[in-house]
Amino acid sequence: MTDGRVTAAVLVIGDEILSGRTRDTNSQYIAHFLLQIGVETREIRVTPDVEEEIVAALNALRARYDYVFTTGGIGPTHDDITADAVAKAFGVGISEDPRAIALLLEWIRPEDLNEARRRMARIPHGAELVANPLSKAPGFWIGNVIVMAGVPAVMQVMLDDVAPKLVRGATILSETIDVRGLPEGAYAAGLAEIAKAFPQLSIGSYPSLRDGKFYNQIILRGRDAGVLAAAAEQTRTMLGRLG
Amino acid sequence: MTDGRVTAAVLVIGDEILSGRTRDTNSQYIAHFLLQIGVETREIRVTPDVEEEIVAALNALRARYDYVFTTGGIGPTHDDITADAVAKAFGVGISEDPRAIALLLEWIRPEDLNEARRRMARIPHGAELVANPLSKAPGFWIGNVIVMAGVPAVMQVMLDDVAPKLVRGATILSETIDVRGLPEGAYAAGLAEIAKAFPQLSIGSYPSLRDGKFYNQIILRGRDAGVLAAAAEQTRTMLGRLG
Repeated sequence: MTDGRVTAAVLVIGDEILSGRTRDTNSQYIAHFLLQIGVETREIRVTPDVEEEIVAALNALRARYDYVFTTGGIGPTHDDITADAVAKAFGVGISEDPRAIALLLEWIRPEDLNEARRRMARIPHGAELVANPLSKAPGFWIGNVIVMAGVPAVMQVMLDDVAPKLVRGATILSETIDVRGLPEGAYAAGLAEIAKAFPQLSIGSYPSLRDGKFYNQIILRGRDAGVLAAAAEQTRTMLGRLG
Repeated sequence: MTDGRVTAAVLVIGDEILSGRTRDTNSQYIAHFLLQIGVETREIRVTPDVEEEIVAALNALRARYDYVFTTGGIGPTHDDITADAVAKAFGVGISEDPRAIALLLEWIRPEDLNEARRRMARIPHGAELVANPLSKAPGFWIGNVIVMAGVPAVMQVMLDDVAPKLVRGATILSETIDVRGLPEGAYAAGLAEIAKAFPQLSIGSYPSLRDGKFYNQIILRGRDAGVLAAAAEQTRTMLGRLG
């Protein structure tokens, strides 16, 4: 949190993402959501359902970034091991949390609260619960790590619950310039000069291919609206001279 | 490459993914592609356009996995720094490669081959080129690291070029069981027993939410068709007893 920057990492937990079976849409959602409140996602990792891998990734990420948001692995089945991995990473105990049991009982009849379902109430000691208005089984927040579900709709309501409590950075503004008819190689030198002149901005050029043709966008990002506008103006002028 | 396993990591390079602006579809494509040829993706990372971050991620991943596939950052603009980062990670030099220049000249007229475009021919010493039939600018392969473009269509033809040269693992088979009408908590104990009885398989339960209702799939993966069939049969029987 130096100079108004607040950083985050997203840790996606699950073999189903690594097998290519399931598309991870959560990391993009979280990154986009966080950017709106001035929190920059600086790294995303996807890790398998293996405890030591999750622990290692958690400890690497929580030491480097202001926040770590995890998704996945907090359900009732044997492959849901995130809560235990988080407890291990923090070196704290874990046990059934009466607050979490109470929440589960809003969704599950007492006679159906079997051992597997009770697993969803296992919360590392010292963690705060994250509300899940959709299906009750809570996420949790410990230190700078926020543990959320993998099902996108559930993750999203958990993120809504957490958002008001996050430290926010200065809002990150952006300008998008559609480059019409010019290939990247034609404006790369001009853009490099502008990037050099505005080191406080992040300036990128992004090609995409549609119907066999490349289309490019230039995106400028920064916290100072005046500086951003000046750089965007120079970029448009530079492109105008070339096009 | 112990016991017939071949592992891989995917390193996605680019601020545009971390900002949430662009959805990374490449890592899922690569993971799915590799699984078909017996190569297991064990980790995915997304890193910003910052040289020391790319170098650190590359060195962590190439030491752990049989292959590392990178996407992004090999175009002509100032934010395309992947090739230099790879050279730095391997501690080798980098310069304009005449083979790469020849390829660029199939796509770009000699008078248009400016300094920015020549950047796309900068290849770390000792690397082999990866063909790009779509827009010529090549990827490359050095050690166990395969460097590909970020534009999905270009990445995909590069992966096609590389595939025949990869060491393949034993084919990974899978069985998907749609769980009709049973919540995860109802079959979690039964599934845990089956997972325990078949430690050579990876067995996961994957919930999704559609129209406010949870739907679950159980996926079993392994290399031995007989073992897989036996575990799938036990899973179906277990579900049948419950449903």
